[in-house]
Amino acid sequence: MFTGLSAFPLTPMNEQGINEYEFVRLVAYLAEAAVDSIGVLGSTGSYAYLNRDERARVIQLSVENAVGAPVIAGIGALRTRDVLANAERAQQAGASGVLLAPVSYQKLTDDEVFDLYATVCQSLSVPLCVYDNPGTTHFEFSDELHGRIAQLPQVRSIKIPPVNNDIDSAKERVTGLRKLIPADVTIGISGDAAAATGLNAGCDAWYSVIGGLYPRAALAITRAAQAGDVQQAKALSDGLEPLWALYREYGGSLRVAATIAEITGKVSQPCLPQPLKTLQAGDRKRVEQVLGQLGLE
Amino acid sequence: MFTGLSAFPLTPMNEQGINEYEFVRLVAYLAEAAVDSIGVLGSTGSYAYLNRDERARVIQLSVENAVGAPVIAGIGALRTRDVLANAERAQQAGASGVLLAPVSYQKLTDDEVFDLYATVCQSLSVPLCVYDNPGTTHFEFSDELHGRIAQLPQVRSIKIPPVNNDIDSAKERVTGLRKLIPADVTIGISGDAAAATGLNAGCDAWYSVIGGLYPRAALAITRAAQAGDVQQAKALSDGLEPLWALYREYGGSLRVAATIAEITGKVSQPCLPQPLKTLQAGDRKRVEQVLGQLGLE
Repeated sequence: MFTGLSAFPLTPMNEQGINEYEFVRLVAYLAEAAVDSIGVLGSTGSYAYLNRDERARVIQLSVENAVGAPVIAGIGALRTRDVLANAERAQQAGASGVLLAPVSYQKLTDDEVFDLYATVCQSLSVPLCVYDNPGTTHFEFSDELHGRIAQLPQVRSIKIPPVNNDIDSAKERVTGLRKLIPADVTIGISGDAAAATGLNAGCDAWYSVIGGLYPRAALAITRAAQAGDVQQAKALSDGLEPLWALYREYGGSLRVAATIAEITGKVSQPCLPQPLKTLQAGDRKRVEQVLGQLGLE
Repeated sequence: MFTGLSAFPLTPMNEQGINEYEFVRLVAYLAEAAVDSIGVLGSTGSYAYLNRDERARVIQLSVENAVGAPVIAGIGALRTRDVLANAERAQQAGASGVLLAPVSYQKLTDDEVFDLYATVCQSLSVPLCVYDNPGTTHFEFSDELHGRIAQLPQVRSIKIPPVNNDIDSAKERVTGLRKLIPADVTIGISGDAAAATGLNAGCDAWYSVIGGLYPRAALAITRAAQAGDVQQAKALSDGLEPLWALYREYGGSLRVAATIAEITGKVSQPCLPQPLKTLQAGDRKRVEQVLGQLGLE
């Protein structure tokens, strides 16, 4: 399940609730494109802003509309108690796997993070992907800690932050981490702009934001890399450079992806939980221009 | 309300719930010591880890046991919807004021933070203190943004991060910020180690962690500074240097304060929400030694 293209859809919402119709349409589009898995309630799915019931409903809708594609569901929360409750609900709703980031308010220690994973794994009957996202959790995993956590039997994948776009240093990163973890634990790349390099450097999966909107474009990159066509994977990714430039300019992928989804009518406006906002005015115009230039579908 | 010593008690809890008896005892001790206000559900009170009902209950217990001292309640949450609900419950429960930090998962923009405060202020009938704590929120206020937010009529105080312990640069910081905000908006210092310097530099309030456990020691520093006895305030604070050293060593005040509370029997062990842990083994021994050395009460 934790290999190939894992596409992460937005969870369209406003202050009244989740737009279930639009969410289902996003999921169905991913299933139709035959992505390898659907990653709901990731950072792109705004999991941290939703309550337990909303999260359970999102997973239920995903499983119902995934046409057999495995659904991986984010279960992160500040408190272990809530992570455990989310894990239980995710399993009940039919998630095939879970994704867990060490979300923090108070900065966490390595021991606290290890114990979080150990506690959650004890209550899990589905496999878990460790979500390493220092940009949102403000927790920096050491390789030693990744190695310890990956020994837990439920852990089957690590979602790593963007690698350096230089292929040699990316290979060094992936190979170095691989040495510390069991052979059946996969490594998945996140950060769309680094995905082709990550896959070319030996990552098993791409946990993809743009794949949640344009699965065919993300699949083309993934399949090229999987077939060993390093040049093609890189060329396809380089073709999306104007999009990666928007991510860099607007502090990450979420606001850009959500703005694209609004512009293209995939979701209603607003689609993000307040206080978050999509891009407006001149910034939105820039996104429109890039979209026109790229001709994604 | 937003002047003098505002003492921030812990919210003792375990995985089953809040220890109401111990919480009430902490609050009653602060009231007895005649602190100027009681700041519940601050970072020290682990607000971010509690649900709406638990927060409302904490505020209700505080108001019932504060013997007339104003209760300031933290209302922060990732989502504006939840901040508004917390604000409503806090007012219903009798809080005299609220404290709001721009908690983040996705990094926030200045406009998003301004709109958060503007939206919340529209629904408030009690005054608000802006909680500037980049260590936990990962949001850096610019002075310009502080100035804009402080114009909102409900805003009456800003809780600023630690100032530099050099008195001249602290004065420059406080004076600089003061120029940008209305005259009736107070500035309060946080970061216990910088409190004497902050008060000596012109801060109106100390939002105090150690004051939540040892109100008399914190009041002595506060009253000296308020009386203009700069040397005495500084000397009293310098006397607590071994405690400030523990804060520095263990990544902030929360784990140290919680460990002290456990060691002294003010709260049961464990008292923090998992995954957070108090200090154990050799680290705990060091806290015990410092406590023995300081003789606080």
